[in-house]
Amino acid sequence: MQNKKSDKVKPRIASGFMELLPGDQIAFNSMLRAIQEVYESFGFLPIETPVMELTDVLLAKGGGETDKQVYRLTKGDTNLCLRFDLTVPLARYVSQYANQLNFPFRRYQMQRVYRGEGAQKGRYREFYQCDIDVIGENLSVFNDAEIPAVIFEVFKKLQVPPFTIKINNRKILNGIFEIMGIENISKEVLTIIDKLEKIGSEAVEYQLINLGLNAKQSKLLIEITSLSVSFAVVQDILNFLGKEDCNNINLNLGHDELKKVVNALEVYGVSEKYYKVDLGIARGLDYYTGTIYETTLNDYPEIGSICSGGRYDDLCKFYTDRNLQGVGISIGLTRLFYQLKQIVVIAHQTSCTSKVIILPWGEEDRIYAMRIAKDLRLSNIPCEVYLDNAKLSKKFKYASSLGVPYGIVIGQSEREKNTVTLKDLRTGEQKQEILLDHAIAVINWGINHR
Amino acid sequence: MQNKKSDKVKPRIASGFMELLPGDQIAFNSMLRAIQEVYESFGFLPIETPVMELTDVLLAKGGGETDKQVYRLTKGDTNLCLRFDLTVPLARYVSQYANQLNFPFRRYQMQRVYRGEGAQKGRYREFYQCDIDVIGENLSVFNDAEIPAVIFEVFKKLQVPPFTIKINNRKILNGIFEIMGIENISKEVLTIIDKLEKIGSEAVEYQLINLGLNAKQSKLLIEITSLSVSFAVVQDILNFLGKEDCNNINLNLGHDELKKVVNALEVYGVSEKYYKVDLGIARGLDYYTGTIYETTLNDYPEIGSICSGGRYDDLCKFYTDRNLQGVGISIGLTRLFYQLKQIVVIAHQTSCTSKVIILPWGEEDRIYAMRIAKDLRLSNIPCEVYLDNAKLSKKFKYASSLGVPYGIVIGQSEREKNTVTLKDLRTGEQKQEILLDHAIAVINWGINHR
Repeated sequence: MQNKKSDKVKPRIASGFMELLPGDQIAFNSMLRAIQEVYESFGFLPIETPVMELTDVLLAKGGGETDKQVYRLTKGDTNLCLRFDLTVPLARYVSQYANQLNFPFRRYQMQRVYRGEGAQKGRYREFYQCDIDVIGENLSVFNDAEIPAVIFEVFKKLQVPPFTIKINNRKILNGIFEIMGIENISKEVLTIIDKLEKIGSEAVEYQLINLGLNAKQSKLLIEITSLSVSFAVVQDILNFLGKEDCNNINLNLGHDELKKVVNALEVYGVSEKYYKVDLGIARGLDYYTGTIYETTLNDYPEIGSICSGGRYDDLCKFYTDRNLQGVGISIGLTRLFYQLKQIVVIAHQTSCTSKVIILPWGEEDRIYAMRIAKDLRLSNIPCEVYLDNAKLSKKFKYASSLGVPYGIVIGQSEREKNTVTLKDLRTGEQKQEILLDHAIAVINWGINHR
Repeated sequence: MQNKKSDKVKPRIASGFMELLPGDQIAFNSMLRAIQEVYESFGFLPIETPVMELTDVLLAKGGGETDKQVYRLTKGDTNLCLRFDLTVPLARYVSQYANQLNFPFRRYQMQRVYRGEGAQKGRYREFYQCDIDVIGENLSVFNDAEIPAVIFEVFKKLQVPPFTIKINNRKILNGIFEIMGIENISKEVLTIIDKLEKIGSEAVEYQLINLGLNAKQSKLLIEITSLSVSFAVVQDILNFLGKEDCNNINLNLGHDELKKVVNALEVYGVSEKYYKVDLGIARGLDYYTGTIYETTLNDYPEIGSICSGGRYDDLCKFYTDRNLQGVGISIGLTRLFYQLKQIVVIAHQTSCTSKVIILPWGEEDRIYAMRIAKDLRLSNIPCEVYLDNAKLSKKFKYASSLGVPYGIVIGQSEREKNTVTLKDLRTGEQKQEILLDHAIAVINWGINHR
């Protein structure tokens, strides 16, 4: 891929990777940071794992779509792959260090994962996952109840458009399947129901009938999972199924768990505006066993779930005999960032880290400018000095491209009188030859009150 | 690698990767964050690049040790490799987006890089680099002068043991080589001189003679590069070389640049305790052309440089005709963290993110405990609730293993009277049944004043 003319290699990256200009990167980083702060406010502990895992460890579960998407490395004699999610590394980590961890182990992890899928718009081969999980033995359902509070705080802090946390319990679905006598094909049924929002009820009905359900069962199932349930879920469902009372263990258990989760939401201050019990969310993955979560943006259903997860059993079964349960969620931040940009929610406030740029008129003003920079940093004001030789107009152009809010101009007069000239680069307002302390006060006020 | 007994895969990672327990991870993250804060205080802009680059782009330079260490990926038809440093991706990024960036482009990047070298103690195959670079056309030497101020602020903030920033200028070395008539083998000479501290002067002398220098030249060179120079570098050197004055352009240029850099250090408040002009640092890499930096810990010279870098020309030559210079540094944080742990400098203050753990006595106290947690978080106090069924002694054991500073115990009495019992878990001091506001005041005071 050499240019004919110049023997240069064309600078480019492979498709399916997100790379941002600094302004967007600042916005992205502030989202990462906000998520991290919420996770830490709930006492989750950070871990990071290597991007590479040994192949036999990573693929211990075997089979499945993910295997085909795994990036393998060729180097030396160890057999290494790139991780495709943060759950398998978590299972491996917990198994490996079980004796050194405190259970319940509450961990967060915010790292990139890799999937070699065919690139399509908004799908990336490399993307950030921001995960939390609580891992323990005999983990009470109150842990499930805390998770939606975390989701709520995260998306409030990220200031995304109105969202709904959808909650369901896999046991309820399993109970319904048992009552209907279709529990032997529950996995396949779940996968089909999961597509309800995407492909519509007619297509789902068709697929269910294809799977072996009769027309009545299929219709009933769609209607139940589309129910806008109030809280008395079990009664609603039974009414619907035409039964008076219920001996189904799964349905009762699921109902109790769901009730505890929903009750906790009120305690945590999550108003009904922000969550919904939705029997239609199934989460295709077969490892969920209880509470499940999805989160959608009310005005942008086409985006799908922006935060999903649930309760699962026996996290570490491929690595250890110790039986550990977990409950957790994952935010795919790279994709979310792309989507929020598409709907123009992210309009970055600033594309610079400096609050002040110091512009020396001439060469001899540079040393004084550097001294001013040192004093600003001592006052915790991030700043930079334009250090190259250039016309003042070019320096101002640089400052305005970056979007730095304040400029400090240093000329001979300022230097000799030990003053600065402060300019608000957004309004053009200027304070000529004032003391630095005065300038610092104005800048601090401006930074904190706008 | 299946266990015979149980069919489980042994949970483990490949050698040469650093993986931390949560307490160490917290310490590591706070170092990352400290470095980031200093970089931003100087107005550097964040970028992140994909971990994978196209092979022809990554290896455009060709040859060299790094090529052999590159991890290559097998997946699909694109030819991808993992980056081995952040400099090549920077060159590619700047070339690719040149029209959308503001120059001088001041960027920081803190990401992992990959080198498939043979694992040895303290050397990692995956490690963080924390880089800054200033890139521009006709970049003034004042940019070089700012870099040591950044290094100084970083290591002050990281509270590492006493350190010295060593500064040299490649032009001075080149000038000396020219005066001695050995400029045609300057690259080889530099590589040998670079080993002075590691292998000692006798071995260096031997290697220089092997290279073709005579015994006198070799001795002279070792003496010059070992000179404890005061600032009048050129005069010192000329005295040493037995010359009265100097027409050597490189020596004069290098001297002027070095003088500007050293002058700026005083302006930036870096005292002489923290830096040293050292003609013996050469930085083996051939792309440096001016100022060079190394940083060492005074009491641990065996660790080698913990922060290195310098001035270079034509960063983007493999990708574009545009001639851009740069100056920058890199901190290999993974290795530094390992080394600081070895010399027991890192004793982490805490191994948890929570400041308070809320311990409900019985099941019925959990809802009240969750409400207290919500109120603490509203007061910006990170906290967690022990949500599982367990004896109070087990709950306290969990809290003390984590090292959470405060416990709030909730029993029937607290619940009914709308109070909390606050316990300082470090001192054992307890305040029985106080109002939550009172507890929040005590906790805030304790967090901020210890």
